[in-house]
Amino acid sequence: MPFTTTRRVEFCDTDMAGIVHFSNFFRYMEAAESEFLRSMGLSVTWLESGLRFGFPRVSAKCDYLSPARFEDILNIAVIVEKVGKKSVSYRYEFHCGERTVAVGQMTAVYCREKGHGQLESAEIPDELRQHLQKPN
Amino acid sequence: MPFTTTRRVEFCDTDMAGIVHFSNFFRYMEAAESEFLRSMGLSVTWLESGLRFGFPRVSAKCDYLSPARFEDILNIAVIVEKVGKKSVSYRYEFHCGERTVAVGQMTAVYCREKGHGQLESAEIPDELRQHLQKPN
Amino acid sequence: MPFTTTRRVEFCDTDMAGIVHFSNFFRYMEAAESEFLRSMGLSVTWLESGLRFGFPRVSAKCDYLSPARFEDILNIAVIVEKVGKKSVSYRYEFHCGERTVAVGQMTAVYCREKGHGQLESAEIPDELRQHLQKPN
Amino acid sequence: MPFTTTRRVEFCDTDMAGIVHFSNFFRYMEAAESEFLRSMGLSVTWLESGLRFGFPRVSAKCDYLSPARFEDILNIAVIVEKVGKKSVSYRYEFHCGERTVAVGQMTAVYCREKGHGQLESAEIPDELRQHLQKPN
Repeated sequence: MPFTTTRRVEFCDTDMAGIVHFSNFFRYMEAAESEFLRSMGLSVTWLESGLRFGFPRVSAKCDYLSPARFEDILNIAVIVEKVGKKSVSYRYEFHCGERTVAVGQMTAVYCREKGHGQLESAEIPDELRQHLQKPN
Repeated sequence: MPFTTTRRVEFCDTDMAGIVHFSNFFRYMEAAESEFLRSMGLSVTWLESGLRFGFPRVSAKCDYLSPARFEDILNIAVIVEKVGKKSVSYRYEFHCGERTVAVGQMTAVYCREKGHGQLESAEIPDELRQHLQKPN
Repeated sequence: MPFTTTRRVEFCDTDMAGIVHFSNFFRYMEAAESEFLRSMGLSVTWLESGLRFGFPRVSAKCDYLSPARFEDILNIAVIVEKVGKKSVSYRYEFHCGERTVAVGQMTAVYCREKGHGQLESAEIPDELRQHLQKPN
Repeated sequence: MPFTTTRRVEFCDTDMAGIVHFSNFFRYMEAAESEFLRSMGLSVTWLESGLRFGFPRVSAKCDYLSPARFEDILNIAVIVEKVGKKSVSYRYEFHCGERTVAVGQMTAVYCREKGHGQLESAEIPDELRQHLQKPN
């Protein structure tokens, strides 16, 4: 069973076509990922010994199958598709009741600060990897 | 030569990592597409005999190659990759000076209102097709 | 006791200063107002006999007292300050634990569609007024 | 003559009411302020000797007089209302052709980093003050 969360479409998420603006699904995906990580005591960004760690995105994709509207409740499944050496790929499925609204994908790279706000990618530590790979 | 436009990164486009939040590239793509269409006297949505026409998105994708920061000027190329029977696929290339920042893709479907705010896809009329297919 | 709701700050709500971008408090206020109205079976916009009704904003204001950061849980109180003939004024108080983060105000006008997407203001009907004026 | 700039309303700035969502005017104000500061070689945030300086907002307000729609071109005037010891207050006037769309106000406080991402307010240096007070 994948991790799932819900969110209700807000008025400001809609556009003049009367539906959720497509760009908001990327916000929804990232927020669902944050909740998934939080459910395991993790985060998308954190400080460790004064250095910032996190998972910046390197690619994002979404297919839109049917519209979502103001006050719709979206069920969002977060599925870990692949944990690579330095990256994690997620798949997201958005449903409104029985209807599939959208299917997305995102790949995030494990990074740590090397000073002066610059990030560099790093191998995902074993403990973190085990959390992410838990059957879901 | 593809259609190109520029935009300057605004403060509110950044996130706590100090870079443009990845979701904003989708706003940037749509706005560049609007400008491309406008340059030919077209739009992403319009009224015709009281009915709404437009190009809702069915898929969107972006690969992030290097970060963009506050006040960076982004050069955005809008390339028509394919004009299908009912859809148009665009490719977007974002540069900041010599540096490639991101490469995106979007597919939009030609739609017309069939009443009550419902849209249905339709074949792209010849005149519109010719505009979109102009060598660029 | 006023109506209260909570929301957790999302990553994309932050800016390069590492705090919630000030414009997001206006989204937060409107979403809290939607929840307040929903708790009474109402909405900020709805269809009635095919015509749209709703509460567009005519003014909005926010004072920022201390910053909110990623993953902070904000407690938001929605206080009906005044129900006028055609308008409602709300006050919003944002707390993060004991700390006051922001205090906002918004005035919304009761409107109905007069056709062609045009809205006109109207007197708030008695039943709606009684809902809004319930001691809170 | 105040500093003025223009911006065209983008599709994603609209909401299901078919008009610019009220929260976007705060983004527009900040972007106009950035352009105003940039026109004098200044910014809303910058690094100096490795420390960050900037103008975080302490209050923001907007009155909405008439709606703005997709592709409208907004003329935005940025008027310095008051330069206090540590703060600047701006007034913003939004016009679309002859029509006044909105009038806003924002107060920003001059701040410098005192380490660890914490900001403290400071007196506006004379040179900066002179720039801001130039008759406009």
